[in-house]
Amino acid sequence: MQLGVCYYPEHWPEALWADDAARMAAIGIRVVRIAEFAWSRIEPEPGRFDWAWLDRAVQTLHAAGLGIVMCTPTATPPKWLVDAHPDILAHGLDGRVRGFGSRRHSCFSSRSWRAESRRISTAVAERYGQHPAVVAWQTDNEYGCHDTVLSTSPDARAAFRRWLEKRYGSVAALNRAWGTVFWSQEYRSFDEVDLPVGTVTEANPSHRLDWRRFASDEVAAFNREQVQILRRHSPGRPVSHNFMGFFTGFDHHDVAADLDIATWDSYPLGFTQDFFFSPQEKVRWARTGHPDIPAFHHDLYRGMCAGGRWWVMEQQPGPVNWARWNTAPADGMVRAWTWQACAHGAEVVSYFRWRQAPFGQEQMHTGLLRPDSVTAPGGHEAAQVGRELQALGPALTDAPLPQPAVALVLDYPSLWMAQIQPQGADYDPVELCFRVYSALRALGLDVDIVGPHAALGRYAMIVLPAQLHAADDLVQRLAQSAAQLVLGPRAGAKTVDLQWPADGPPGALADLAGARVGRVESLPPGLTETLTWDDGRQASASRWRDHLEPTGEQTVTVARHADGSPAVLRHGRVHTVAGWLDEAGWQTVLGDAARAAGLRPQTLPEGLRISRRGALTFAVNFTDQPLSWRPAADDSAPDAPPPERLLGEEQVAPQGVTIWRT
Amino acid sequence: MQLGVCYYPEHWPEALWADDAARMAAIGIRVVRIAEFAWSRIEPEPGRFDWAWLDRAVQTLHAAGLGIVMCTPTATPPKWLVDAHPDILAHGLDGRVRGFGSRRHSCFSSRSWRAESRRISTAVAERYGQHPAVVAWQTDNEYGCHDTVLSTSPDARAAFRRWLEKRYGSVAALNRAWGTVFWSQEYRSFDEVDLPVGTVTEANPSHRLDWRRFASDEVAAFNREQVQILRRHSPGRPVSHNFMGFFTGFDHHDVAADLDIATWDSYPLGFTQDFFFSPQEKVRWARTGHPDIPAFHHDLYRGMCAGGRWWVMEQQPGPVNWARWNTAPADGMVRAWTWQACAHGAEVVSYFRWRQAPFGQEQMHTGLLRPDSVTAPGGHEAAQVGRELQALGPALTDAPLPQPAVALVLDYPSLWMAQIQPQGADYDPVELCFRVYSALRALGLDVDIVGPHAALGRYAMIVLPAQLHAADDLVQRLAQSAAQLVLGPRAGAKTVDLQWPADGPPGALADLAGARVGRVESLPPGLTETLTWDDGRQASASRWRDHLEPTGEQTVTVARHADGSPAVLRHGRVHTVAGWLDEAGWQTVLGDAARAAGLRPQTLPEGLRISRRGALTFAVNFTDQPLSWRPAADDSAPDAPPPERLLGEEQVAPQGVTIWRT
Amino acid sequence: MQLGVCYYPEHWPEALWADDAARMAAIGIRVVRIAEFAWSRIEPEPGRFDWAWLDRAVQTLHAAGLGIVMCTPTATPPKWLVDAHPDILAHGLDGRVRGFGSRRHSCFSSRSWRAESRRISTAVAERYGQHPAVVAWQTDNEYGCHDTVLSTSPDARAAFRRWLEKRYGSVAALNRAWGTVFWSQEYRSFDEVDLPVGTVTEANPSHRLDWRRFASDEVAAFNREQVQILRRHSPGRPVSHNFMGFFTGFDHHDVAADLDIATWDSYPLGFTQDFFFSPQEKVRWARTGHPDIPAFHHDLYRGMCAGGRWWVMEQQPGPVNWARWNTAPADGMVRAWTWQACAHGAEVVSYFRWRQAPFGQEQMHTGLLRPDSVTAPGGHEAAQVGRELQALGPALTDAPLPQPAVALVLDYPSLWMAQIQPQGADYDPVELCFRVYSALRALGLDVDIVGPHAALGRYAMIVLPAQLHAADDLVQRLAQSAAQLVLGPRAGAKTVDLQWPADGPPGALADLAGARVGRVESLPPGLTETLTWDDGRQASASRWRDHLEPTGEQTVTVARHADGSPAVLRHGRVHTVAGWLDEAGWQTVLGDAARAAGLRPQTLPEGLRISRRGALTFAVNFTDQPLSWRPAADDSAPDAPPPERLLGEEQVAPQGVTIWRT
Ligand SMILES: [Zn+2]
Ligand SMILES: [Zn+2]
Ligand SMILES: [Zn+2]
Repeated sequence: MQLGVCYYPEHWPEALWADDAARMAAIGIRVVRIAEFAWSRIEPEPGRFDWAWLDRAVQTLHAAGLGIVMCTPTATPPKWLVDAHPDILAHGLDGRVRGFGSRRHSCFSSRSWRAESRRISTAVAERYGQHPAVVAWQTDNEYGCHDTVLSTSPDARAAFRRWLEKRYGSVAALNRAWGTVFWSQEYRSFDEVDLPVGTVTEANPSHRLDWRRFASDEVAAFNREQVQILRRHSPGRPVSHNFMGFFTGFDHHDVAADLDIATWDSYPLGFTQDFFFSPQEKVRWARTGHPDIPAFHHDLYRGMCAGGRWWVMEQQPGPVNWARWNTAPADGMVRAWTWQACAHGAEVVSYFRWRQAPFGQEQMHTGLLRPDSVTAPGGHEAAQVGRELQALGPALTDAPLPQPAVALVLDYPSLWMAQIQPQGADYDPVELCFRVYSALRALGLDVDIVGPHAALGRYAMIVLPAQLHAADDLVQRLAQSAAQLVLGPRAGAKTVDLQWPADGPPGALADLAGARVGRVESLPPGLTETLTWDDGRQASASRWRDHLEPTGEQTVTVARHADGSPAVLRHGRVHTVAGWLDEAGWQTVLGDAARAAGLRPQTLPEGLRISRRGALTFAVNFTDQPLSWRPAADDSAPDAPPPERLLGEEQVAPQGVTIWRT
Repeated sequence: MQLGVCYYPEHWPEALWADDAARMAAIGIRVVRIAEFAWSRIEPEPGRFDWAWLDRAVQTLHAAGLGIVMCTPTATPPKWLVDAHPDILAHGLDGRVRGFGSRRHSCFSSRSWRAESRRISTAVAERYGQHPAVVAWQTDNEYGCHDTVLSTSPDARAAFRRWLEKRYGSVAALNRAWGTVFWSQEYRSFDEVDLPVGTVTEANPSHRLDWRRFASDEVAAFNREQVQILRRHSPGRPVSHNFMGFFTGFDHHDVAADLDIATWDSYPLGFTQDFFFSPQEKVRWARTGHPDIPAFHHDLYRGMCAGGRWWVMEQQPGPVNWARWNTAPADGMVRAWTWQACAHGAEVVSYFRWRQAPFGQEQMHTGLLRPDSVTAPGGHEAAQVGRELQALGPALTDAPLPQPAVALVLDYPSLWMAQIQPQGADYDPVELCFRVYSALRALGLDVDIVGPHAALGRYAMIVLPAQLHAADDLVQRLAQSAAQLVLGPRAGAKTVDLQWPADGPPGALADLAGARVGRVESLPPGLTETLTWDDGRQASASRWRDHLEPTGEQTVTVARHADGSPAVLRHGRVHTVAGWLDEAGWQTVLGDAARAAGLRPQTLPEGLRISRRGALTFAVNFTDQPLSWRPAADDSAPDAPPPERLLGEEQVAPQGVTIWRT
Repeated sequence: MQLGVCYYPEHWPEALWADDAARMAAIGIRVVRIAEFAWSRIEPEPGRFDWAWLDRAVQTLHAAGLGIVMCTPTATPPKWLVDAHPDILAHGLDGRVRGFGSRRHSCFSSRSWRAESRRISTAVAERYGQHPAVVAWQTDNEYGCHDTVLSTSPDARAAFRRWLEKRYGSVAALNRAWGTVFWSQEYRSFDEVDLPVGTVTEANPSHRLDWRRFASDEVAAFNREQVQILRRHSPGRPVSHNFMGFFTGFDHHDVAADLDIATWDSYPLGFTQDFFFSPQEKVRWARTGHPDIPAFHHDLYRGMCAGGRWWVMEQQPGPVNWARWNTAPADGMVRAWTWQACAHGAEVVSYFRWRQAPFGQEQMHTGLLRPDSVTAPGGHEAAQVGRELQALGPALTDAPLPQPAVALVLDYPSLWMAQIQPQGADYDPVELCFRVYSALRALGLDVDIVGPHAALGRYAMIVLPAQLHAADDLVQRLAQSAAQLVLGPRAGAKTVDLQWPADGPPGALADLAGARVGRVESLPPGLTETLTWDDGRQASASRWRDHLEPTGEQTVTVARHADGSPAVLRHGRVHTVAGWLDEAGWQTVLGDAARAAGLRPQTLPEGLRISRRGALTFAVNFTDQPLSWRPAADDSAPDAPPPERLLGEEQVAPQGVTIWRT
């Protein structure tokens, strides 16, 4: 694993550059990402390029032995460009043109925007495509940030109509797929179809789903154009994009299909404050972040590109500026997050950013250095990791990728379906995936998060927390697998067009589940069901309840609601869950399935997580107390040498890391 | 009472129709509502009508012995129509045109819309007006649903100006009625008057009230045009419209004046989740609905049309899709709601819908059948009611309408006044009417909910929970009555123009009340007043406080605030209440008044409600425990035979019904 | 001190005027404010003036011996005017034109509006500038009410560009000041700069700050034009404007620089309900208002104009209509608020309004009279004050202005900086100033609230709760002062351009503080730090934490967080506070500083406040229990006579006032 950093030479006097580069190198940084927001400096006026400063910046970094991740600068089209081509600007869901003055103000469907993006990226790729310092590329920056996937511009509407025409061939097919006979929504031609916004009440759900598919495809098409330019002008150098956490605006698997490396931007504290965590969790994890936020995304993005290459492109180095509350990491957390990424197989962990900018929207976002160039706490911790990496050596930190026995399937279109029709106001499919993942991790299990098209053959256990639609080929692969399967509530509840399946939920999963769903209900806050297992274990469920009906003798009810109805069914190796379980409930279901899969779930100390890469086991402590944990002895090899501790204390230190080799 | 169902033949393969009709008939359904959303199938292209399919559907139902409620299809103008006449589209309060893609996107004031509505309804009426299967008509569907009464279109603005001209004659009169001298709002002509939207702060309240009156009149005028067409082409068949619960967007009494039958759409669980109930109530009644939600509306809509004809046009059959949370009814509730409607005098209870649609916005809305045609739980309960109705016979289930001794006056313009000037953020006049109604029902009293123009002569007790404006003719009728009167807070607080009355509240009710209101205050949450009656009974009040001043020796203070000031006054037969009482407080005031009226209030078991129709008494249990209640022996007829139990158990079963004949 | 009232002769039949004037005079009222909303009556049609009615009204008041505060009527441009000049209308933050129908719908930057405002005010000034009854003028009414400082009209955008050109000279300077290199926001000319609205995410903070500065300057320029007209036509008569409480839309110090008298509109109950108070505080102070709301603003507005002249122009007389909840004042509070204003040095307390209007938006806003002319409770209390003033005599009630030893600096641009970049969702700098002020008042200290340009030489203690930017001249004056200084969190955290200062916070205050801030964090609700002083005293902090680093031996850590890090530092006479303290914490820090300043902080009974004017001490009791407090004996003059009680009881009566002369 290498360390990296995000750097903005255009923000600083040129006199600082050489010293910056030297300091980076000195603390063990190897790669530097640059230029993703530099368009106005690269092309300060229409058609006039100023390469000189960037050439010097690249040369300065190169001279210090640093590799460069060069970016296409399309995340921030400059003012003169949008003034010259106003159709570049995206339109919001309210129909209003979005204004210049921040970033990502362009519409992915704008014809002008596509042409201008190709033009600028070609220029950058031609300039630096063969530069020896350039070790990788990044397209754009954080596609979709600030809700910018959907645009209601005229270009977007026209492109949507053509997309529909291509998908359906005939408007009759569209009418069937959307069920437009409902409420007299029938269309006579594709040109009658508008974007599903501004309607008096909820627009047609299939219409909304197709809009999201279309918009996702537009992002993928934009990215593909960029990748092709880079491949043409910089062959052999990997192309990446930095995805965001908990973001479902487009299908990441589709975009990643065109990339060599998936990267993501990891801000554990900001995510803890801004996402679905309870007020109690927001306080408890205020200065460490919820332990599973980084892990969830590490495992998700490891599953994106063929070969599993992934980086953290932006690692939180201290307090940020954009969350509702912006706490400071506890001492040690920047180091702990870095080692946690290593534990999950990161090639690079790159901090955002080198030096805190004293101006602009992110002036309260810290860096490894303070604006006055004094090393900030995060900088000291990065340097410590640099030293530790040096000491451990690449043979160790480039250990084999994790090879989990457990797969969790995360399918973007299924998430969209649940977001479009949550049916209960707190039914958040992303939270559900996260909670299930977290329960697996609390059981000490390593997890791959994979898309619905992934090969599933090698897993002993496959969990589908929110698979609202299961395509035939996925069902086939599940059927052919020998793994224990865990189906969450609403599994198979929708057709590909977001309709109710012919035989009802779980649709194509019915044979596997050995069950049907008679009806479903969502439950208001405070309405909690108590579940009891045959052996007396109890848990509770809320938010959702599938009324499960076993369809054969071989389907066993393993847990029941208070009224006796099934809460968890088992049909051979398939476990079907009726509701939104609490933490204990998920651990019970998943622990039982894991044991049936021949795995060894364990009860970790609260706030401790473990991960394995080949012979290495990493333990990270997210609490402020030392915690005891060590690898179990291998029963099958009683004479094997005891685990060797490579880093950290025998008791995992507060906010600390211990690495064992077994 | 008959059972009915809502059916959408256009949603299903024609091959299913005959079997559907046979199954309907088999479970006791007698009437079927169709076609309210079928415009795009009836007129698939401008001017080209396709009657064939609808003819066959009508014939199929007719052949099975089912009566048809035929609808005008104006709730969903098709896309080609709004493309041809864009001025049909309503404009929202933000001034933006509302989009096609759901329903009710038309503006009631649009000239094109009025013409097109007359055209399509004439066509339907001509086609089916004389068909022997058509037993009734429905105009449109749920006027005002999704906040569609108010539109800010150019046509609406022009029509509002003409409406004002007609109402006021001179702009000087308008300026007086609105008090436009305040803040220099004076107008020199009607054409200077805009719609009261987009203002920097609150617009003039009288202006806002007139806009709501105008918009209500537009709904009534639209409906009247439709009714006239139906009467012309289908003489002798009753015309209905299906109103919504807790909806005050227009004056239902005005619309109902043109109808033969008032119907409403009863969704007890959805209403419990989406309206003003506390989080505790939302959990407690999650699977039964609050007991008084159906009753309140049954009694309201029984008071709409001359003769008291009313139906439930849409009865919740299981979970729905549109509430924030959508629970499943407890076993028995679909049956219990049906019998509860019978207890209040329904002619028909019609379930929405026959078969759950697998597509479109309401694909999660259950029906009597699942999408795969399997009978859903609600279908089994409907069939049970069908058998019970058959067994009991029409002589029983068509018993005389209820003849309550208690009237509760609900006046839409008064509600609008309180909504426009709530003065306290939680002063919801609809909730207040409901809470008062609920207290009456908990005392075992039958109630008529009547408009301000209703004949009041026959009532022993009249309650006005939220009568902000009392017109002279209402005051006269109250004065001439011998009934006990109960006036809620803010009674008589406004003139017809939404001004402060010359002598202050209670305005024209002052002589009856024997009191004036010195000043008023609204109370923030947590500020609770303790009330004490002379005999030591206590209750509490919140949200509102009228500072009552008795105006004569004959006015007695029957309850006081902690500071000694009057909380409840009695002036002869008039009881005046200063605040928003809690449940105990309302039961105390209303119980005292009822006893003074010679009625016999009782304390029912919690969650049980009773209703009387002639010799029948219905008891419905909304809890999951059996409850004991039976009619009291008639003291005046000691030798009368004991009550005879016609349906249900001696102890009213959980979610059950017991019917006695006395 | 004199009493005044706001009167609207145009609202009432002329027949009432003489009696109204007589009744005003009879209860001790001396000045009457009129005409601020009367444009449509003064100029009912374009260019046609109707002075007759206003002449008669003025004459009637004059004949009764009442002085008049005449207003320019620009707060409510009439409909014919905005129809003739649609560019007068402001545009909202959403870009939509704001509608006619309430008030303040004009854009300060509109060229038409400026011309029309000059025209109407010149007409009024010419008419009444020399009238003997006119004792003062008021420009407009409540500048900025209902968020009307910022407008997005084309005129506003053009004016902003010219304002920027003037401020920066070159666009390069603007680019530097805003740091537009961040996110490629660079501009090539001033005409490329838009208003910072509608952006995809947060706009550039410096851009936003300059927009607020510009908009504030537009208000000041508008006011200056009006003042100049009044000075020209009515020389020698003071000009005032009525500011609002807790309002920071423009820099009041800048507007006040052109005025002779600062007035404000005091609505203690409405402010308690609508501002940042906790639910518990909203209940506790529901009928008295939080004790420090009036005092805070009295002390703020006393610091506005040279000479310290200030009035309460609108005093809440009873329940109002515009708060979320509108309670009635406890008996005695209208009198108590009036005496509290006297205690802080008011020249005039003028009630809003004489008689409650029965129509229009404020028909639920009480007056001294009810609409039926019966004296309302507030009227009786005003009359009581009138009698008391008469009895005490002007020598007493015009005692010297307060001369506090404590200054609290309130700097509007610093508030804007914190509002633009709160960094934590609950970081409200206005609340922080208020909480610090309240702690000073609970210690029995008198306070001047001053702007950053005020002379500070005479203060023994200076508190800067929210001084995000400290200009060099302020720092110099603080350095030259001998006062104890208390710096709140975030002191000096920003440059004048809203950038991070070169050496980080506290910027130019670093030498005074003897400390730097290493990093900062905001804390989510529930994350509370416990602070411990060396002597064991404890308090807690929340919301914010500066990580303070002492920069020299002379900096003493006087309180620490649980982790040992500094929470309060002392560097000589400078006390620096790291966080948002609770009430106990602020009292500890401020009490220590006050004692170090030679002051005598005391612990007042809860809910009692004291104020001094020369030899007078006023004690006001905001509770419903009598409270014991009396001036301490003067140790330095043991033979001095004991304090003499001039008004009130020895024990301060509930909602009462006691005045002592020492
Ligand atoms: Zn896919
Ligand atoms: Zn009416
Ligand atoms: Zn200033």
